[in-house]
Amino acid sequence: MIILLGSSGYIGQAFEQALQTRGLKFTALSRKQIDYTKFGVLLDCLRKTNASFVINAAGFTGKPNVDACETARADTLLGNSIFPMTVAQACEASGISWGHVSSGCIYAGAKISENGELRVEKDLMRNELKLVREKNPDAIRGFIEEDEPNFSFRQPPCSFYSGTKALAEEALSSVGGGYLWRLRIPFDENDKSRNFLTKLQRYPKVYDNVNSLSHRSDFANACLDLWQGRAAFGTYNITNPGFITSREVVKLIEKILKPNGQFQFWANDEEFYKTAAHAPRSNCVLDVSKLLATGVKMRSVREALEDSLRNWKPSS
Amino acid sequence: MIILLGSSGYIGQAFEQALQTRGLKFTALSRKQIDYTKFGVLLDCLRKTNASFVINAAGFTGKPNVDACETARADTLLGNSIFPMTVAQACEASGISWGHVSSGCIYAGAKISENGELRVEKDLMRNELKLVREKNPDAIRGFIEEDEPNFSFRQPPCSFYSGTKALAEEALSSVGGGYLWRLRIPFDENDKSRNFLTKLQRYPKVYDNVNSLSHRSDFANACLDLWQGRAAFGTYNITNPGFITSREVVKLIEKILKPNGQFQFWANDEEFYKTAAHAPRSNCVLDVSKLLATGVKMRSVREALEDSLRNWKPSS
Repeated sequence: MIILLGSSGYIGQAFEQALQTRGLKFTALSRKQIDYTKFGVLLDCLRKTNASFVINAAGFTGKPNVDACETARADTLLGNSIFPMTVAQACEASGISWGHVSSGCIYAGAKISENGELRVEKDLMRNELKLVREKNPDAIRGFIEEDEPNFSFRQPPCSFYSGTKALAEEALSSVGGGYLWRLRIPFDENDKSRNFLTKLQRYPKVYDNVNSLSHRSDFANACLDLWQGRAAFGTYNITNPGFITSREVVKLIEKILKPNGQFQFWANDEEFYKTAAHAPRSNCVLDVSKLLATGVKMRSVREALEDSLRNWKPSS
Repeated sequence: MIILLGSSGYIGQAFEQALQTRGLKFTALSRKQIDYTKFGVLLDCLRKTNASFVINAAGFTGKPNVDACETARADTLLGNSIFPMTVAQACEASGISWGHVSSGCIYAGAKISENGELRVEKDLMRNELKLVREKNPDAIRGFIEEDEPNFSFRQPPCSFYSGTKALAEEALSSVGGGYLWRLRIPFDENDKSRNFLTKLQRYPKVYDNVNSLSHRSDFANACLDLWQGRAAFGTYNITNPGFITSREVVKLIEKILKPNGQFQFWANDEEFYKTAAHAPRSNCVLDVSKLLATGVKMRSVREALEDSLRNWKPSS
């Protein structure tokens, strides 16, 4: 029996659907029925249900956005750092394995290949890098799982949200026996407030940057593939291969959805952080070689985006 | 078998001595020998040693002072919030109880009795309150265990250190089955960097405020008294009854130790925070009625201070 935590959330829903599609037996625990944030309650539940695997898709992301985590520090820590430890430790005490939805937002930038060496560049929108991207996109490499987070409490500046996610990774790695699945900016064809494609269409102005992205259902399926394929426990970047700028995504939206009106962009970081954002935002490229090497298939980010837009279901 | 964690620390040493004096069988785990921050390692150790009780005197306090916790956020959270949960959860999984050294620094100020009502006053050094103190000290009441912390991530401003200690209390209360022992500004007769009496003598200038204080050995003994007396699990303020200003403690030092030179004081909060401190400091009065009602004896703060100074052992 698989136990799914956080099934009502944006990512939890994708897991629920993927589990159903695969015909896997699972129980989606609801906090309304059982306070699974309590170690004793969760431990008891794992034993009674004879659980074999726990998926933790719960977390505190902040509403309306990650800026809310800057002030809601207790809830952000409880949801993103303390609770994941409770889950992993209850699993260890029960002798079962777990998967935790982590995030790529613990990195800023990418690695640039220059003269046979890789250097970290936190700001990918610098003018000379735009040039690198246009002339030689292969020079831009993603962070691999072994790279130490560079957008975390240990390597500030970071958002409080990112700090708590990186802290969870550090703490969970001391428990072991499970997966750290790194999601990055989820999207799909369903018009929802947490969908990147929805956000881009609702923002008064778009913030342009370079990112790896995760198609929501591709993500959940890749996570389950890892577990079902008995891949080694540990950390996996789980994004659709490649990277893309927000401006390029907007072009896809314009081409496929043909919306009325024109997209506006923030002139630069100064204007964006002065007007629309408080906490620093992570923008980063992740390398998914480790995931692909296990045999798990992921379509490219451009293919997943075009597919989502071609099947776009606007909310009424 | 009692397991003592953090025995090399300032408070851990006091527990070690109190346990020895009482002839209680205990094992002081050393992180050099065994990484007890790992849940699996700790759980295994608790089972193998047939442990009956775990004392967690480990924590991250920041060096040279609490300001260091503002930047060392990962270590502060790991030491003060995540690790206590690991301990409590390993204990719960093993069916044994625990005691956690918490702190009174999750409060600011005191409660003032006026016209039969109690109101919280965060700043006890306001001029009119100095007057209250002089004319009617009984009007100043300490925070009781049920009072919600007012110097925490949930009620900012707070220091990052205090935030992590309050967060631990909140998280641990969901585990249960143990004691939250609230220490407040430790001191005794041994000249050491973490001793309040040492600090007062080393500061270039003294910051005057009103506080409850804990004699280090009185604290450890009261904690063990609670456990040995099978007091109900939960939170206990464990300070020497009463409260005192730093200026009054300085007067005791001058009277008993007769040091050369004169103590200097910061003129006001503005000068103190501009020059000597970065993070806001907790200054607070705690009510120890709950502790005393269990039958545990504690001498008054003045008596404990005078005794420490009369038996003062300067470091060479």
